[in-house]
Amino acid sequence: MPAITELNSQLTIFEELESEVRSYIRSFPVMFEKAKGYKLWDAKGKEYIDFFAGAGALNYGHNHPKMKEKLLSYLADDGITHSLDMGTKAKAAFLEKFENVILKPRSLQYKVMFPGPTGTNTVESALKLARKVTGRDLIISFTNGFHGMTLGALSVTGNSFKRHGAGVPLHNSMAMPFDSYLGDDVDTVDYLERFLEDNGSGVALPAAIILETVQGEGGLNTAKDEWLKRVEEICRRWDILLIVDDVQVGCGRTGPFFSFEPSGIKPDIVCLSKSISGYGVPMALTLIKPQYDIWEPGEHNGTFRGHNLAFVTAAEALSFWETKDFSREILDKGAMAGEFLNDLTDKYPELKGEVRGRGLMRGIACGVDGLAEMICGRAFEKGLIMETSGPNSEVFKIMPPLTIDREGLNRGFAIIEASVKESLNK
Amino acid sequence: MPAITELNSQLTIFEELESEVRSYIRSFPVMFEKAKGYKLWDAKGKEYIDFFAGAGALNYGHNHPKMKEKLLSYLADDGITHSLDMGTKAKAAFLEKFENVILKPRSLQYKVMFPGPTGTNTVESALKLARKVTGRDLIISFTNGFHGMTLGALSVTGNSFKRHGAGVPLHNSMAMPFDSYLGDDVDTVDYLERFLEDNGSGVALPAAIILETVQGEGGLNTAKDEWLKRVEEICRRWDILLIVDDVQVGCGRTGPFFSFEPSGIKPDIVCLSKSISGYGVPMALTLIKPQYDIWEPGEHNGTFRGHNLAFVTAAEALSFWETKDFSREILDKGAMAGEFLNDLTDKYPELKGEVRGRGLMRGIACGVDGLAEMICGRAFEKGLIMETSGPNSEVFKIMPPLTIDREGLNRGFAIIEASVKESLNK
Amino acid sequence: MPAITELNSQLTIFEELESEVRSYIRSFPVMFEKAKGYKLWDAKGKEYIDFFAGAGALNYGHNHPKMKEKLLSYLADDGITHSLDMGTKAKAAFLEKFENVILKPRSLQYKVMFPGPTGTNTVESALKLARKVTGRDLIISFTNGFHGMTLGALSVTGNSFKRHGAGVPLHNSMAMPFDSYLGDDVDTVDYLERFLEDNGSGVALPAAIILETVQGEGGLNTAKDEWLKRVEEICRRWDILLIVDDVQVGCGRTGPFFSFEPSGIKPDIVCLSKSISGYGVPMALTLIKPQYDIWEPGEHNGTFRGHNLAFVTAAEALSFWETKDFSREILDKGAMAGEFLNDLTDKYPELKGEVRGRGLMRGIACGVDGLAEMICGRAFEKGLIMETSGPNSEVFKIMPPLTIDREGLNRGFAIIEASVKESLNK
Amino acid sequence: MPAITELNSQLTIFEELESEVRSYIRSFPVMFEKAKGYKLWDAKGKEYIDFFAGAGALNYGHNHPKMKEKLLSYLADDGITHSLDMGTKAKAAFLEKFENVILKPRSLQYKVMFPGPTGTNTVESALKLARKVTGRDLIISFTNGFHGMTLGALSVTGNSFKRHGAGVPLHNSMAMPFDSYLGDDVDTVDYLERFLEDNGSGVALPAAIILETVQGEGGLNTAKDEWLKRVEEICRRWDILLIVDDVQVGCGRTGPFFSFEPSGIKPDIVCLSKSISGYGVPMALTLIKPQYDIWEPGEHNGTFRGHNLAFVTAAEALSFWETKDFSREILDKGAMAGEFLNDLTDKYPELKGEVRGRGLMRGIACGVDGLAEMICGRAFEKGLIMETSGPNSEVFKIMPPLTIDREGLNRGFAIIEASVKESLNK
Repeated sequence: MPAITELNSQLTIFEELESEVRSYIRSFPVMFEKAKGYKLWDAKGKEYIDFFAGAGALNYGHNHPKMKEKLLSYLADDGITHSLDMGTKAKAAFLEKFENVILKPRSLQYKVMFPGPTGTNTVESALKLARKVTGRDLIISFTNGFHGMTLGALSVTGNSFKRHGAGVPLHNSMAMPFDSYLGDDVDTVDYLERFLEDNGSGVALPAAIILETVQGEGGLNTAKDEWLKRVEEICRRWDILLIVDDVQVGCGRTGPFFSFEPSGIKPDIVCLSKSISGYGVPMALTLIKPQYDIWEPGEHNGTFRGHNLAFVTAAEALSFWETKDFSREILDKGAMAGEFLNDLTDKYPELKGEVRGRGLMRGIACGVDGLAEMICGRAFEKGLIMETSGPNSEVFKIMPPLTIDREGLNRGFAIIEASVKESLNK
Repeated sequence: MPAITELNSQLTIFEELESEVRSYIRSFPVMFEKAKGYKLWDAKGKEYIDFFAGAGALNYGHNHPKMKEKLLSYLADDGITHSLDMGTKAKAAFLEKFENVILKPRSLQYKVMFPGPTGTNTVESALKLARKVTGRDLIISFTNGFHGMTLGALSVTGNSFKRHGAGVPLHNSMAMPFDSYLGDDVDTVDYLERFLEDNGSGVALPAAIILETVQGEGGLNTAKDEWLKRVEEICRRWDILLIVDDVQVGCGRTGPFFSFEPSGIKPDIVCLSKSISGYGVPMALTLIKPQYDIWEPGEHNGTFRGHNLAFVTAAEALSFWETKDFSREILDKGAMAGEFLNDLTDKYPELKGEVRGRGLMRGIACGVDGLAEMICGRAFEKGLIMETSGPNSEVFKIMPPLTIDREGLNRGFAIIEASVKESLNK
Repeated sequence: MPAITELNSQLTIFEELESEVRSYIRSFPVMFEKAKGYKLWDAKGKEYIDFFAGAGALNYGHNHPKMKEKLLSYLADDGITHSLDMGTKAKAAFLEKFENVILKPRSLQYKVMFPGPTGTNTVESALKLARKVTGRDLIISFTNGFHGMTLGALSVTGNSFKRHGAGVPLHNSMAMPFDSYLGDDVDTVDYLERFLEDNGSGVALPAAIILETVQGEGGLNTAKDEWLKRVEEICRRWDILLIVDDVQVGCGRTGPFFSFEPSGIKPDIVCLSKSISGYGVPMALTLIKPQYDIWEPGEHNGTFRGHNLAFVTAAEALSFWETKDFSREILDKGAMAGEFLNDLTDKYPELKGEVRGRGLMRGIACGVDGLAEMICGRAFEKGLIMETSGPNSEVFKIMPPLTIDREGLNRGFAIIEASVKESLNK
Repeated sequence: MPAITELNSQLTIFEELESEVRSYIRSFPVMFEKAKGYKLWDAKGKEYIDFFAGAGALNYGHNHPKMKEKLLSYLADDGITHSLDMGTKAKAAFLEKFENVILKPRSLQYKVMFPGPTGTNTVESALKLARKVTGRDLIISFTNGFHGMTLGALSVTGNSFKRHGAGVPLHNSMAMPFDSYLGDDVDTVDYLERFLEDNGSGVALPAAIILETVQGEGGLNTAKDEWLKRVEEICRRWDILLIVDDVQVGCGRTGPFFSFEPSGIKPDIVCLSKSISGYGVPMALTLIKPQYDIWEPGEHNGTFRGHNLAFVTAAEALSFWETKDFSREILDKGAMAGEFLNDLTDKYPELKGEVRGRGLMRGIACGVDGLAEMICGRAFEKGLIMETSGPNSEVFKIMPPLTIDREGLNRGFAIIEASVKESLNK
């Protein structure tokens, strides 16, 4: 790497050269240099525990040694790096393993599409295909859903700040209330059903319903299995395609590989990205029930849909799923996190805290303005990377690599508790 | 890499598991395995010359040794791989070098935005920002422009098959005739100007005009410098932002680093992707004149905007631009290609050929239906990868890595001529 | 009138020459010739009682003698008929009387706009103005609302058949649940409020909320005063304009001149048409709170916004409102209708009837498919004109001229009961 | 009529009570009271010659005696006034006469639709139907076309001030250059054809092309017959519906009943309004080729589509067309107007005048800013009502009732010349 002047290490280079759009660097204002597993180090050698995991892109931790080994070897051998959607051995190997390790054991039948290597791109491809299959325009999404930043994905995203960024009105989408949106007494599927049943509701039959089973950006709102099943029934009743956006909550984040497994639903389209490459490099998949795979060749394309370095690490990452151990461990560690958070809300009622989430994606919604952000800020000073979510950044979110060990978890928990205390002036 | 069964090498795995949307594998039905410079090898060891260069993503060739070295070293050292938009040494190093090697020597002042790592994402960010800056809705694009597959980028793309894939009407965009669209006698900027001057034209003042200086997908249509200047004047007159999409034609494809350099225009926003990482891995930049960098933090974001492996190779790739030699070489090789193509059209009038393009992005528009595709097909059999472009796939396109040597070029030319002959039954 | 051939009286002329879009002639297949008060006569001299009142356009009955007299005299004197929006004595007289008889006594301050002379046109003007005032795009409407057939008005109309007729997706609108839409236990304003309060709901702050206090076409759904007040509060809280579409329910249909008077709300914009001319001739008004009257001259126009014959009868029609007697009478006759309908549902439980409506706009929602239509069909055979409403035509609707006498009402009631009996095979 | 206070006659009542949107009253600030033929009188008895004709709604002059007689008699007999789309004798008589006097002699086969009684409403119905017939979204319109103020009609209207009034982006429409838009040397149909032929043009196949043969509001731009024929050929080639908006230029304004008769084209849909009722009262028709009359009953409706007073006068107005005399007279008087205007431009080169228009719809485009408006202002002071058109109000427009006599024409011409002189300070 070329020499970096002292200036850079002071971060001013980003202020001078990078766009104002930069954001995480404002919360975590240091120069990162190395990372391994659940740890990062900045240029001064300070260590950080990672309870953020690249917003879900680092479920297997940073620079996992086995993936790294495969990657180094592939690079050293001049394996083809960029291939658009031509056939390559790396891609074939990934596909075969994905079929054998993920789909077959779960009795799932999907054709695999490689859209551009980002979450928003798999969502765009899913929306297009649903419209093509049904000949309908509307996509129903849910309050506080987050699906991406390009115009199609943004139209089904709830956040008003992000939506406003479009600069034009967003069309062909309609937000319905997510599970528990109106409190626990109101069944929001009834609401959805009423709109669809009524010819006068002003809501057309949609091409698709898109949802996250746990809304990571939206505040860790968790859909009950029963709610998911009823949404699926509605889709079946009116021939609506069910799209599950598992970009953040898939790849084991909630325990099973797919977040929807416990509910028993079978989505028509599944969107995957973030941790699918395993190594934090760009990759995305769109899984499509075979009967809906009616794309024309090249109808949706993209330059980086054949990112072979990602295929190499992705194939290796699937090894985690060859037995049920990994899933079990995640659930165990998730339970630890849940317990910790429950204790915390009990111990610190001033948090006005509500524990949310599933698996290793948990957090506390704080009933005090600005508190969650303050806690994250304090935690960072103490060496823990953690971010907020929710429409008002009211939730602080525990989302470590799934590979973290108990020691790492406990170290992180301790920092959180210390930060909570400080933030509450205790 | 896990063992791959014999089946895979027969490509049936893609037919069975991959979506129907796959396309290049249909034109190039082999299993690629290795690549270096301007050569690829399939699983059977057959060698191919690359006149395709990853659709512009491999301007420096496959697996360039210096970049590979940097990448191996970064990986070995556990340099941070995934960082969202946090500060990292790799990113700082890239930014500093981009400023010093690219922007400063060209007296260009831009803030650098890292959108999601794909071409469509940089375009989406550019359109959003132009709308935010101006408070206007409309984007004017040009006939046969290609800007991406997500809903915003697609709305400014000309191709009807791609547009139709959206499944919904595309809005807030208007196609104007590109340079020479109505023949050489009609000045299409006059047309644009007439629409903007006339209060009754039905065309609102746009937020931005987006263009490629050479339309790579659209058929190698090349804008004259004078035409570009006049478009820029129109932008200045009505405070319209000028966006140059240099995703395919930037990074040296036409000779200079930016394709618009010879014209002297100074776009307000520049979109870069494809070859910016140098190594064929996903990366994209949006360059923004400082006065227009009015993003709120996080207003446009994305999980893979901090792809450090790409930053490492991208910084190394910029070394090519430290002197003027690289640019000169490209122009020389481009001239060779132009000469070859001119000779070809003269020698084979049955092609009804029109030579198009600039730099190392050249081709022949064939006036016979299906002929360009046939020539590409024959060439592939003979070991040359080359694709068509244009609304009716009427152009065959010479687009090798810029680093190709004269021998490589001549071998490719020989295959093309042989393929032309065969296709014309000569 | 020119001689009409025998053919015409057989209605075949309409089948031969008129578009398939014709509808009421299919339900009432006779040739009408004359009309007076609450009675119509067909070409054969058969008399019909009118419980339809031109879908609300004939609140003062057919050819009211005083209005007729004014009209004849105006015509005879060659008073100006067509004037666009120039000043005319007829228009001035109407404006002055509207101010004195309607606005002042109700302490309402509105500027009067004359859009094109139809309901859909006043709605279009209201939506445009609300967007101009607020700089926002979205209009919130309610389930089963009906606001017109042109593209803007249609976008806020609930009926799926009508919406589908647009042939393009309808944008910038969002349907919220009307009062009691989810049963009497769910407060639908809470729902609306939740969406507006939540930054992640996917619903932007709207320019306006548009509603009918009683949904005439939507099935006689009636908003409670308390519900209307809470909607108004929401509008005040977020600076949203409140538009009341009183096209069908205004001009006394529910008792008071404006349907919203009992609730005490003060809409920012009020849409009037249908009975505003008094004589069944085209006319419409858009009432605008003075502070929102920020139109540029001619920004919304139309050829027939100066229909002076309508101004002449409209001014005369306002005489009905010079005392409170007319309103009292309407309420009395409305109560009679309500009593009759309640008795009917009690007496004929097979109707599975639910009595709905207010004032002289009442009806029964029948819980049996097709029953309401059958009852209307039988009633027509017996000399009563009455129509259905609701998303499934499940409601039969009593909507006579407000000037009907008790004898007329009772004759109509008798026909309805006979038709109910027949339809139920009793 | 109720007494009007002195105040009213001073027009302040309009300033106090009417919306700021009012426009013509600002150009013609008097209180009109009576009108007959081509004359109007204000409340003070001052006489005005009408070269405006209600913007084309008074082709037969004000209060034509024969129509008035029929109307008085119909009213006196209590003929039914308002009937929605039920069958009435007045409607049957109109339909029969329209068929016999207009359609049959011209060998035209159209089904007649009665949309709401305004121009914008017939246009909205035409656009909907074209989209339904073709299943396509886009409507191609022309620069400086004017089709109405409701959202659908506005989307195909060129004027930027009117479009901006929508408050939301207008979609599914595309403006192409009208005949001679780019000067006489450029064939604008070539341009249109190029966009449609090219798969990469960014312009989809449209549902319809909508046009006026003479653009009344757009500046009296006149399409050549040959141009119209070529547009029709394009429609036939791609199964695009051809919609002629004859709202302003139909009903004899250019000589023949339909403005397109001389060209020989046969539009698929024709929009009529303004003068169709003959008496200046609201009425509109949509004429549909029988094979395209695929409306569902009631798919487009409206309260005032059965305005029988209009049917009575409309039927009488058709008597003008029973012989060819009327058309011949219009052409003669049109020629007089043309001659006068040509002389005027010759005599007053300071006008930088260009004579435009056809039939009795003529005018001069003045090459001096504000001049046309000044001339109209002076003419009004001298007792002539005349308005401007064009995107910059650069054209003054002679558009008297078609029934005007030579004396009336000459009196008007004299006032125009005097006003021109004054405006030029001669």
